Amino acid sequence: MHVEIFLLPENLSGNICVLIDVLRATSTIATALSNGAESVIPVFSLDEARKYRSEGCLICGERGGVKPEDFDLGNSPLEYTRNIVEGKKIVLTTTNGTKALKKLNCKKVIAASFLNARAVYKYLENSAEDTIYIVCAGTNGEFSLEDFLLSGYFAKLDKNPVDLTWLALKYFKTVNDVYEEIKKSSHAQKLFTLGFEEDVHYCSNFGILDVIPIYEPESGNFKLLK
Amino acid sequence: MHVEIFLLPENLSGNICVLIDVLRATSTIATALSNGAESVIPVFSLDEARKYRSEGCLICGERGGVKPEDFDLGNSPLEYTRNIVEGKKIVLTTTNGTKALKKLNCKKVIAASFLNARAVYKYLENSAEDTIYIVCAGTNGEFSLEDFLLSGYFAKLDKNPVDLTWLALKYFKTVNDVYEEIKKSSHAQKLFTLGFEEDVHYCSNFGILDVIPIYEPESGNFKLLK
Repeated sequence: MHVEIFLLPENLSGNICVLIDVLRATSTIATALSNGAESVIPVFSLDEARKYRSEGCLICGERGGVKPEDFDLGNSPLEYTRNIVEGKKIVLTTTNGTKALKKLNCKKVIAASFLNARAVYKYLENSAEDTIYIVCAGTNGEFSLEDFLLSGYFAKLDKNPVDLTWLALKYFKTVNDVYEEIKKSSHAQKLFTLGFEEDVHYCSNFGILDVIPIYEPESGNFKLLK
Repeated sequence: MHVEIFLLPENLSGNICVLIDVLRATSTIATALSNGAESVIPVFSLDEARKYRSEGCLICGERGGVKPEDFDLGNSPLEYTRNIVEGKKIVLTTTNGTKALKKLNCKKVIAASFLNARAVYKYLENSAEDTIYIVCAGTNGEFSLEDFLLSGYFAKLDKNPVDLTWLALKYFKTVNDVYEEIKKSSHAQKLFTLGFEEDVHYCSNFGILDVIPIYEPESGNFKLLK
């Protein structure tokens, strides 16, 4: 198996792409679906999200890390509790994660975070794919340390890692404590100043959710793989 | 001091930029100047290089790693011995390193390689700059492991490393043997297949040249800092 890592979203075509936005979109998607949300519909603008209000969806997301005033939920995974999201369709628009989807023209996009990393890894390991794209969402178009760290976990799937895959693998091996590491990122530091320290803690939990959120372009939403 | 690392050349304006193309342009520039070449004139195309022939320059460089047939020297630093280059003007065109210069609109560009890393580090440490750009030339527009590794040595100059600077610093610390590490790069592997294994060995020597090649746009060439 060959693993190709992208530090930022690119126009990609392929079978399987793993999208990583640890802080916080893919952590939020995994949490919402794990807590019984029916689906997560990623959209690209605030206005596009608002159009779903008439359909009884929860309207969710952030700009600048913060929930728009008229939205139901922000982008904090801790808000997506079972009593709030169970059975609901979640419409989500975020600065990095959901925008990244626009560039990915793959048959399946899997949302990966530290929370569900183990489940995603097992799924990929058992797939018959030759090549898997791992795409870091980045932060405002810049390199994202926390996304790259998680890419290193998936880099283990590569039978002959070189270049970025080699670096990611090595980097992941140096880290014993995900929280202590990702708090070095400017993204985490920004979330701290916005009061989201608990989110950074929560998103650092490795493998606590046994879910695989899959997005297929024709469905237009993330649902759990059954 | 703030250090900003770029994985690939970008349009940058600033005072000081450090250009890294370990395999092999900046290793070649440092070696040529260390062996008494008067200057290294980077140019962007083969034809542009050929125009300098009437001026008595040595016409040097590569495409696809290999010396064009009518050129005097290729891009192997081991060719740039004192008896060949002393007192000469070297015109150099390479796939990654000299092309990167086109994007850098900085007052001074320093050519850094493992060979002269210690000298460049001391120079930067003693400069009064607030911000230093470290630009990896990359390989054919892709991430270059060996360039990024060396950027991690300069990352030590940053008083509060985050994101890429943090990663580079950590990565550099994991490496005990530069040659063993950079041979994992696809760029080194390509040079092996072209028969340039000795170049990769030579370019891995840390701090053996006490030279600081500086390019100033108005001069149009790299010369040694006196």
